[in-house]
Amino acid sequence: MRREICLEKKVVSANDRLAKELAERFRAAGILAVNLMSSPGAGKTSLLEETSRRLGGELRLAAIEGDLATDRDAERLRRAGMAARQINTGRGCHLTAAQVAEAIDTFDGPGRPIHLDSLDVLFIENVGNLVCPAQFDLGERRRVVIASTPEGDDKPIKYPVVFHTADCVVLNKTDLLEATFFSCEAFRQYVRGLAPKARILELSCRTGEGLEAWLDWLRAERASAKKC
Amino acid sequence: MRREICLEKKVVSANDRLAKELAERFRAAGILAVNLMSSPGAGKTSLLEETSRRLGGELRLAAIEGDLATDRDAERLRRAGMAARQINTGRGCHLTAAQVAEAIDTFDGPGRPIHLDSLDVLFIENVGNLVCPAQFDLGERRRVVIASTPEGDDKPIKYPVVFHTADCVVLNKTDLLEATFFSCEAFRQYVRGLAPKARILELSCRTGEGLEAWLDWLRAERASAKKC
Repeated sequence: MRREICLEKKVVSANDRLAKELAERFRAAGILAVNLMSSPGAGKTSLLEETSRRLGGELRLAAIEGDLATDRDAERLRRAGMAARQINTGRGCHLTAAQVAEAIDTFDGPGRPIHLDSLDVLFIENVGNLVCPAQFDLGERRRVVIASTPEGDDKPIKYPVVFHTADCVVLNKTDLLEATFFSCEAFRQYVRGLAPKARILELSCRTGEGLEAWLDWLRAERASAKKC
Repeated sequence: MRREICLEKKVVSANDRLAKELAERFRAAGILAVNLMSSPGAGKTSLLEETSRRLGGELRLAAIEGDLATDRDAERLRRAGMAARQINTGRGCHLTAAQVAEAIDTFDGPGRPIHLDSLDVLFIENVGNLVCPAQFDLGERRRVVIASTPEGDDKPIKYPVVFHTADCVVLNKTDLLEATFFSCEAFRQYVRGLAPKARILELSCRTGEGLEAWLDWLRAERASAKKC
């Protein structure tokens, strides 16, 4: 057991070194890199589709998509107008900084990187998993955790590690509030207990309700990244 | 990288040895052990609550509950009439055979094991995670994967490893079908492609629709475990 823990630390610290390099590249390019984390099916890709449709004419956006298998999410984003690169992790339960670096360097194929200077925001959509991604820094400037009403309002206290590290918590699928047993008040209280400074945004990608506040948050964060 | 893979294999094979011992204990006791896996919030605990209410007078049921934090799920099950023991994994993204063995041996406190001979079905509710639990045998006789309609119908092909190992796939929250963009036909087709022999059950823990088929599946599997 002791050896396992030591090795985990070693793997994480190797990742951290690469993540620091990525963070420096993002900082130098003045872009906002966002690590999106959630359970499977909470709406990460839906949020990016809507973001592309509403903000694509104003900011230069791109996405790196992490999934065990298929390139469905990258295809969905391209159809919504966002440049996207799929990473398939096989059995891998989270993205690593090395995978993100490779995706940047081969964004449009071998030897065809995406130029960070030509971007305003780079989204990194992690593997759908509310546990493991929290422990792997990808060099991001901001962490966004997406929850959704059908999952239940107690997810923050049952999966505290990922919520604890969030800069912004998005509650998606508010259109299903009445069809579920979800208490927004309880959810907000749980999030505040774990991440007192995190911005909490409630929205529905389906109806569009609340999306403007999300776009405003992105605009402000991007402006702040630009200044650094 | 190579060393990481070797260590993962070592950890898994140590787990497999313990899992075999557990499987032998379950077989000797003639009980049905079920490993329940799903995304966070798909409805594992809700399904067990309904199972307890409807089957608790007929079969002797107990549950081991895996969560990063809180004992909410074990408490919910006790309120629904099922004996339950909570395991908190901290940062752990799946249950291990060692944790299950310890939970059995200390079910009602130190030195107070649950007697497997006095049970018909032992449910092991894994950590909510559609990736890591698939790779860790817990000695179970049957694996049940629960999906839910708001997650989207493409989860099987995006998380193939866990669906590939399923003996039974439960689609929960059918009451939300009309409020989501979920195609049951596409979902069934994806599941059949990965687990051709898996039983597929569609139900709603909220309305009770479809629950009888789940109870029948449990009855039949328990009878088959008894005969071994």
